[in-house]
Amino acid sequence: MADIYQESLKMHEEVKGKLEVNIKVPLENSHDLSLAYTPGVAQPCREIHQNKEDVYKYTWKQNCVAVVSDGTAVLGLGDIGPEAAMLVMEGKSILFKKFGNVDAVPICLDTKDPKEIINIVKAMAPSFGGINLEDISAPRCVEIERTLIEELDIPVFHDDQHGTAIVVSAGLMNALKLVNKKMEDITVVVSGTGAAGSSIIKMLKALGVKEIYGFNINGIVIKEDYDKYDFLTKELTSITNLSNKRMTMAEAFKEADVFIGVSAPKLVTKEMVQSMKKDPIIFAMANPEPEITYEEAKEAGATIIGTGRSDYPNQINNVLAFPGLFRGALDVKARKISEGMKLAAAKGLASLVSDEELSYNYIIPNVLDPRVSKVVAASVSDQAIKEGLARV
Amino acid sequence: MADIYQESLKMHEEVKGKLEVNIKVPLENSHDLSLAYTPGVAQPCREIHQNKEDVYKYTWKQNCVAVVSDGTAVLGLGDIGPEAAMLVMEGKSILFKKFGNVDAVPICLDTKDPKEIINIVKAMAPSFGGINLEDISAPRCVEIERTLIEELDIPVFHDDQHGTAIVVSAGLMNALKLVNKKMEDITVVVSGTGAAGSSIIKMLKALGVKEIYGFNINGIVIKEDYDKYDFLTKELTSITNLSNKRMTMAEAFKEADVFIGVSAPKLVTKEMVQSMKKDPIIFAMANPEPEITYEEAKEAGATIIGTGRSDYPNQINNVLAFPGLFRGALDVKARKISEGMKLAAAKGLASLVSDEELSYNYIIPNVLDPRVSKVVAASVSDQAIKEGLARV
Repeated sequence: MADIYQESLKMHEEVKGKLEVNIKVPLENSHDLSLAYTPGVAQPCREIHQNKEDVYKYTWKQNCVAVVSDGTAVLGLGDIGPEAAMLVMEGKSILFKKFGNVDAVPICLDTKDPKEIINIVKAMAPSFGGINLEDISAPRCVEIERTLIEELDIPVFHDDQHGTAIVVSAGLMNALKLVNKKMEDITVVVSGTGAAGSSIIKMLKALGVKEIYGFNINGIVIKEDYDKYDFLTKELTSITNLSNKRMTMAEAFKEADVFIGVSAPKLVTKEMVQSMKKDPIIFAMANPEPEITYEEAKEAGATIIGTGRSDYPNQINNVLAFPGLFRGALDVKARKISEGMKLAAAKGLASLVSDEELSYNYIIPNVLDPRVSKVVAASVSDQAIKEGLARV
Repeated sequence: MADIYQESLKMHEEVKGKLEVNIKVPLENSHDLSLAYTPGVAQPCREIHQNKEDVYKYTWKQNCVAVVSDGTAVLGLGDIGPEAAMLVMEGKSILFKKFGNVDAVPICLDTKDPKEIINIVKAMAPSFGGINLEDISAPRCVEIERTLIEELDIPVFHDDQHGTAIVVSAGLMNALKLVNKKMEDITVVVSGTGAAGSSIIKMLKALGVKEIYGFNINGIVIKEDYDKYDFLTKELTSITNLSNKRMTMAEAFKEADVFIGVSAPKLVTKEMVQSMKKDPIIFAMANPEPEITYEEAKEAGATIIGTGRSDYPNQINNVLAFPGLFRGALDVKARKISEGMKLAAAKGLASLVSDEELSYNYIIPNVLDPRVSKVVAASVSDQAIKEGLARV
């Protein structure tokens, strides 16, 4: 790890910013200038003034997304502030371009007030075709995202919530095929009920999973404790732990077909895995150290193991989702990213692993697979059109 | 004009945005990904978290400027809204890149409230090395710019105010050489006392001009009317019309060596030019129709004529100033753009016309002259260092 850290430091210093803005029109003579700037530009200005929607026709809004953070929940580093968060948002932006051909602009905000963040993003919205929220701490991130989805008519998507949920869902669809189980029949333990965990739980419910036990630092989520919870956890009490059992995570494992971890290191033991139902599926994604290591899960007899890391099979990586998701949304000038579009993204992603290729070590495409964002984008565009959310 | 309008419309539709974001690092394999994104990126994040100023070292802040507008005073089109303004801000951004190698991001805001605009720009400031304000109506633009200069430690510059002032000043320095006059000896009539006009007046005063008569839609600016004025015009009463004369613009012309117009079409007649002192200098820059046409000014005997148009000699064009100005400010990670730095930009720009080249039809370099931004940038950087405003 030390090596990659030093190498990254050196690379960042040398490259002087991982992004640049480039010009797509010639600017060699005064005719070029008068087309791209004054006086020529006045004409498309007038057109947009008459019909706001023409901003999609004449400006980079049609392909441009803002990557917005307040730096409060950056990677595993926590609240490191907007300046330090810039590097991660730049990183996100290059992934948008590389994998989705989306022009993304990193914008880190020097405020932690949800109301202010909402107002700022609303004010900036005319300039962008979509907003990717990133690394904003829970549950504020949910409040911010929901308000913006409600009040804006461009896609707003908090990747930390739904990106992981989409990729986990795709991976789980394929994993269940291998072990011959159905969504309706499985029990899932989810460790971590913050931004990612609660979105995963909701998506799995939408896919038909009947029983999910959600755990956080205070133990199992349970109706009885409703009044103690923040609004996000409150919502989970009506869709998880339906039989209202107060139990430890070890106890819940005994009922579980699947474990999904988006929480903290070393919460899961070999014994817990061994106590699971037949063909345990373990997605242990805490970063950088997982809930249980790949090796331990393997030794304990897990049938399918997914991690957050590129050095093991079945990497559950958000980059499999967000570039294609926004590509698809931008392609049809979508007004929002709906639940249906997120599910379509998951299904599109899962479909890339053919029945012939599908194996315990290959339930999800590789992040460098060039087909990924195209297939995800197509699924998302189609769904947006079906739901009447497309402008085209 | 109709032709260029239609051609521009077509070009804008075809190009689908004049800007794009590009990636400066390789992203071909998982090692590349772990350097530019997780886990490698965590290390420079930690460095910036410990020392905020390192954001200049590791992110594109070092070369990136936001071009911010609320769309209230766009070109000659007026308050056309943030969507339509995007095209002009994109145009500005490509000029930044082409002429200053500055990465510029157009951000149009859906609010006209100066306080809100100030708060938004302050919140975004960690992400940018500078802020170029653009096409915000007067006198709000002045309030917004002053507050931001006061409260931020990155350069904030409203081009509509100072860009024109810098280029006018450069042109006038060279014009006066040709007619053998000194700043201290001339009388100037300025038509238009809004954003550009008031900044021109202040810069000319800083260059030593003794008497300036400022005119706006209500006539000459005069101390007696102080209470009727907005704060911007109030400020002019103490530096213009020192002898406190209530007169028409035609009367003022009789005392004038120089006319500078940033106002409205057809305010100046041939007779007025003929009534001026020896060797009249006319900069008639109202756009698209000037205060007096080049042809009429010529016929009336003006010695030196500058316009805002590329199809006549001596084009007074902001693009001669802002790219080099920001290039110079970014090169030394300047904390602000001071009055001294603006004057240095004007002097640097003027110096590009050698005594041998200097003529009635060549007082200011051509906008496509590749030396311009380099010389302006060097002058600005040097001045920033002199004034202790540089971070390097």
